[in-house]
Amino acid sequence: MAFHMEEVIEMLERTPKVLEQYLVGLSDDWLKADEGEGTWNPSQVIGHLIYGEKYNWIPRLELILSDKKDKRFLVFDRFSHLQLYKEYSISEMISEFGSLRTDSIEKMKQLIKHESQLELSGIHPVYGEVKARELISTWMVHDLTHISQITRVMAKRYEMAVGPWKSYLGILKNNTQK
Amino acid sequence: MAFHMEEVIEMLERTPKVLEQYLVGLSDDWLKADEGEGTWNPSQVIGHLIYGEKYNWIPRLELILSDKKDKRFLVFDRFSHLQLYKEYSISEMISEFGSLRTDSIEKMKQLIKHESQLELSGIHPVYGEVKARELISTWMVHDLTHISQITRVMAKRYEMAVGPWKSYLGILKNNTQK
Repeated sequence: MAFHMEEVIEMLERTPKVLEQYLVGLSDDWLKADEGEGTWNPSQVIGHLIYGEKYNWIPRLELILSDKKDKRFLVFDRFSHLQLYKEYSISEMISEFGSLRTDSIEKMKQLIKHESQLELSGIHPVYGEVKARELISTWMVHDLTHISQITRVMAKRYEMAVGPWKSYLGILKNNTQK
Repeated sequence: MAFHMEEVIEMLERTPKVLEQYLVGLSDDWLKADEGEGTWNPSQVIGHLIYGEKYNWIPRLELILSDKKDKRFLVFDRFSHLQLYKEYSISEMISEFGSLRTDSIEKMKQLIKHESQLELSGIHPVYGEVKARELISTWMVHDLTHISQITRVMAKRYEMAVGPWKSYLGILKNNTQK
């Protein structure tokens, strides 16, 4: 369960490609489905990933690795993306996410030259001290949690249509989670 | 929440492509990770999907739509694939799954000529009477449940590495489910 930069990067790199195959070309009935008020549809999830790529992961990593004395992270905005990317097509969003992700990985490679930097820390508004390697691990698992969310949201559209099989399909029993 | 053949097909068609982007080229540390004894790694999940494509979904649909009097489904074997595809590379498996899926969809289109056929039923060993449209819906949600499983299994490799963020990431809280 150790942290390995190479395997984290191989996962981070493929997320936009997976999402492209998954969502581009799908009909709006799939892309605009959600789990009820206050929950996100697959398209909005991509907006959240774009926003995180711009304002969360790399900016926080830069702060951790910087010379600044005050290492407190800004609170991550989980709502602005709902307005910002409202008019984007899914293909535009995923392409934007893909370019940002390529840049983010490049930036991370430039920032981290020595393994010891992974042990440096910043101050999370809720969790307190967190290390660079924990931030990077979370960045990757955050991708996976949202692939999982998109999958669950789409599966739930067919919750009734599967008839008696509902009790067999684990995904239909998961709660509305990030 | 009604059943729409076109949107089910658009989802069924993309599953092998999504899995290809997700898994082909990933290192074995990802592909051979599981959630403990008796659980499947991502590679074994693909074996299960291949097996289902050969022996489950279309054979059951054919039985439902056939003239046979006895409409009882065979019990679906959830273990043979662990041996059968053990020596396959992930790329071989996904390519095999992709060809089988293309054939399955073609077959389904040939089999179903009138909407009324979707109301015909077979006898499931546990659930009793199930309709063709419920079987087809389940086929698709079954894909999604296994995409979700693969995602969760991989996320859990980094359960400890994310540090305090663990409590924030929904995917790490899901149980070991199908």
